[in-house]
Amino acid sequence: MSETIFSVVHKDASSKARTGIIQLPHGPVETPVFMPVGTNGTVKAITVDDLHEIGFQIILSNTYHLYLRPGTGVIDAAGGLHRFIHWDKNILTDSGGFQVFSLAPFRKITEGGAKFRSHIDGSYHLLSPERVVEIQSILGSDIQMQLDVCTSYGTNYKDAEKALIITDKWLKRAKSAWEAVTDDGIYQGKLFAIVQGNFYKDLRQRSAELVVAADTPGIAIGGLSVGEPFEVFTEYLQYTTALLPEHKPRYVMGIGTPEFILEAIEQGVDMFDCVFPTRTGRNGLLFTRQGPITIKKGKYEYDFNPIDEECTCKVCRNYSRSYLRHLYRTGEILSSILASYHNLYFLHDLVRSARRAIQENRYTSFKKDFLYSYKSGTSKNE
Amino acid sequence: MSETIFSVVHKDASSKARTGIIQLPHGPVETPVFMPVGTNGTVKAITVDDLHEIGFQIILSNTYHLYLRPGTGVIDAAGGLHRFIHWDKNILTDSGGFQVFSLAPFRKITEGGAKFRSHIDGSYHLLSPERVVEIQSILGSDIQMQLDVCTSYGTNYKDAEKALIITDKWLKRAKSAWEAVTDDGIYQGKLFAIVQGNFYKDLRQRSAELVVAADTPGIAIGGLSVGEPFEVFTEYLQYTTALLPEHKPRYVMGIGTPEFILEAIEQGVDMFDCVFPTRTGRNGLLFTRQGPITIKKGKYEYDFNPIDEECTCKVCRNYSRSYLRHLYRTGEILSSILASYHNLYFLHDLVRSARRAIQENRYTSFKKDFLYSYKSGTSKNE
Ligand SMILES: [Zn+2]
Ligand SMILES: [Zn+2]
Repeated sequence: MSETIFSVVHKDASSKARTGIIQLPHGPVETPVFMPVGTNGTVKAITVDDLHEIGFQIILSNTYHLYLRPGTGVIDAAGGLHRFIHWDKNILTDSGGFQVFSLAPFRKITEGGAKFRSHIDGSYHLLSPERVVEIQSILGSDIQMQLDVCTSYGTNYKDAEKALIITDKWLKRAKSAWEAVTDDGIYQGKLFAIVQGNFYKDLRQRSAELVVAADTPGIAIGGLSVGEPFEVFTEYLQYTTALLPEHKPRYVMGIGTPEFILEAIEQGVDMFDCVFPTRTGRNGLLFTRQGPITIKKGKYEYDFNPIDEECTCKVCRNYSRSYLRHLYRTGEILSSILASYHNLYFLHDLVRSARRAIQENRYTSFKKDFLYSYKSGTSKNE
Repeated sequence: MSETIFSVVHKDASSKARTGIIQLPHGPVETPVFMPVGTNGTVKAITVDDLHEIGFQIILSNTYHLYLRPGTGVIDAAGGLHRFIHWDKNILTDSGGFQVFSLAPFRKITEGGAKFRSHIDGSYHLLSPERVVEIQSILGSDIQMQLDVCTSYGTNYKDAEKALIITDKWLKRAKSAWEAVTDDGIYQGKLFAIVQGNFYKDLRQRSAELVVAADTPGIAIGGLSVGEPFEVFTEYLQYTTALLPEHKPRYVMGIGTPEFILEAIEQGVDMFDCVFPTRTGRNGLLFTRQGPITIKKGKYEYDFNPIDEECTCKVCRNYSRSYLRHLYRTGEILSSILASYHNLYFLHDLVRSARRAIQENRYTSFKKDFLYSYKSGTSKNE
């Protein structure tokens, strides 16, 4: 059996939600945890000082992007991604599979790997399961993901099954490669397998069984939050998590709204990430406990209240909606800086509150209360 | 005689350079001083925490921009510009004259004032000398500038003389308005007059005499660094400063390169500002003691040295040229953040070193040494 990196601290009495701790090379991570995304080795518009200040213990970075630019040669010479970007806590990297699937202007998936053309300069590349392990090892990722085949919402059964079969073969090859690269104990990053199967329950089950058998330190649930209705997301999340062992961390990729995060936590998910809080922040959408607000609106011109009265972040302590609207309208970079900071702080705080609620066996009512004012406010803000 | 806000602390034995202190409503300012520019009420890509950290005691903001957006109504309701932007040290605002001259798609200067169309929405506005005093008083500027008529390098004698005559009439009106607005002691900002006269020595002299007679708390030298050759800049700077009293702070607008700053200090100038360090920073030009470097160049791909070995700023302590090149090439906002921080820190540090050199009567050799390695490095970097 693979080493245990995860311990459940407390299970909520009212739901499947749980708190826990993941032990990683760059320190412990308390779960549930939201991980901000630093695609190119920087969480957009945020400094590492700000990440520390908010309290993040882990960030995500994208293998596909870093592989293409600046390339593994540069990061290797820099002494790894942590040193290159000056971040001494944990980094999770994805496998690049999703980006090949969503960004590359050309791709061809064979059993050998994913051949694709760069969206930057059109050059050809092949990512094999082994190469992806190697790249992430060079990056020095604390958690690395296996290469998988992504499918979109609406993919037919046959293609979904084919993707699942290749993903499983790649998992076995990734695991061998990862065992080899961690053998000498110098690189200590943990491999996560990915459950696929699209929106077919028997395929989800088959994939989950293969993943559980592979016995990697952690497990990701792939292929969710890809455009399906919220009810379908919930149904398949619930179905899939029930197939996974209790003692391994569960990670759902690409969820970053309060609704999706709180739902995932309720289903027993421990980790999630999304560009949503920073991307929407740059576009002037700011989270509040009464729902998100669009800061450019005229009604904020003379509004000298903070973004969110209850938020204790430095943006809310020091700046008004009126000033933030002004910064947004004048296209100032400080608009992106302050909005990204607040949105990340807000989600970090939401997840911390969720942990406390689990600890106190009141997660279900916490979620209900939060979403009640979040959703009723949302309709008022429109 | 107007109140004295400036005291000379030390005069360099080897040049006309001097150190001093300006007493302002939001604290003392040590001179010579470089003031970063926050056009829209934010120094681009820099937080106020960063401004404090670097050590700035005064920043500049643009009346023209703030008057158009968000407008004085909003800033008045916010309780003034300091509160609006959360900056508790000093703010100098310009009069808007230069922006009307350089940005507005239409302008008409009469004795009454400057009529112009907004570059944002095409709306018509009239800035009179009195209105400009009023606007800057609403902003709560610690130093406010009179409205003046700007002329470009190459303006003929007759037009330069006409501009000078109107500027003088406006000065008298501005001073009356400023005396009225400061009469009750609530608003305590200081008015600076502006010497014009283009590149005609008799006009410079006439303007200087009028300005000295007006006896404002401080004096700006306008119409320099507008595209003239460096030698012409030096000649007219030297000529004009010699006409000004010792006991008033002297301010030259729009200079922000080490060469121009060190020259101005040598001529006895106390204050200067420019968008140059932040604008060029965003464009990937970084100051070093061996001349500026263009960070996008291929030769920095594997360069893991800091921007400047001797710089003690947090960017140079924590990041490599290689990482900064990567951020620039990927268009990351962090590139602008870190480059702006370093460039401002570099200039702040340069001016602090200049103050020390003046204090120790070695300004001339300090300037010579700095420019020797700065210029010889510049040619090597190309
Ligand atoms: Zn906040
Ligand atoms: Zn530096």
